[in-house]
Amino acid sequence: MKKRLTATASLLALLLALPAAAQFAKPEDAIKYRKASFTVMAAHFGRVGAMASGKAPFDAKAAADNADIAAAMSKLPWTAFPEGSDKGDTRSKPEIWKDSAKYKEAADKMQTEMAKLAAAAKVGNVDALKSAFGPAASTCKGCHDNFRKD
Amino acid sequence: MKKRLTATASLLALLLALPAAAQFAKPEDAIKYRKASFTVMAAHFGRVGAMASGKAPFDAKAAADNADIAAAMSKLPWTAFPEGSDKGDTRSKPEIWKDSAKYKEAADKMQTEMAKLAAAAKVGNVDALKSAFGPAASTCKGCHDNFRKD
Repeated sequence: MKKRLTATASLLALLLALPAAAQFAKPEDAIKYRKASFTVMAAHFGRVGAMASGKAPFDAKAAADNADIAAAMSKLPWTAFPEGSDKGDTRSKPEIWKDSAKYKEAADKMQTEMAKLAAAAKVGNVDALKSAFGPAASTCKGCHDNFRKD
Repeated sequence: MKKRLTATASLLALLLALPAAAQFAKPEDAIKYRKASFTVMAAHFGRVGAMASGKAPFDAKAAADNADIAAAMSKLPWTAFPEGSDKGDTRSKPEIWKDSAKYKEAADKMQTEMAKLAAAAKVGNVDALKSAFGPAASTCKGCHDNFRKD
């Protein structure tokens, strides 16, 4: 049983790593790319959050546009964690590669919640936005707690 | 005539700066964001280029997906050039703010060519991709030559 779990984890690590290996010439390219995609996502997610928390006035179009971009960006970083990209200018914890199944699950959950937030933003009222923002934000936090160094 | 041109340039600078001022708390946030969006765009554009130049095997789906992402990313950086973000960790030339009309024209052209590239990639053959890639790449180069320090 333990052997099978290890094999599954290895397979998942391979699946996560394969497209990345094909796409980035060097580990530092992958690190730069994944950080950049998180940066862009965070900027747009932050603007949605400012409206959801009342720090910025609610603007239905801006909320929908920013949530759409955040949701699109949430799909991008995951091919950029090839083996060997745990070193360098990165705060990635080794758990990303050691517990790759758990990491993939967290990444998938984040994408799901971002898509829900984008759908909620299209409703056009701030209460829908507020309801969807919390669960999306907690997927960010969950991953940061478990997979990112302080 | 000269006065009107100056007034137009000032208005354009204002239009470029206004959303940015509203969106980024600090100039360095804008710089980080615009660099990140260019980084993500370049990664995907580069993959299309590798296929267009024969350095990577042509894969119709990968070409369409990557060109779509590059085109979407090409819309993002332009609100992130507020006044005051010419200093700091940036290679932006002062011409971006001095010749803002020319910069906006170059930015618009790049977005147009990226959209054409994304459309060409959907045709599903490498010749269509090759035809659209050159003009898109030259909009990158044009801007780098005129508006980015070495």
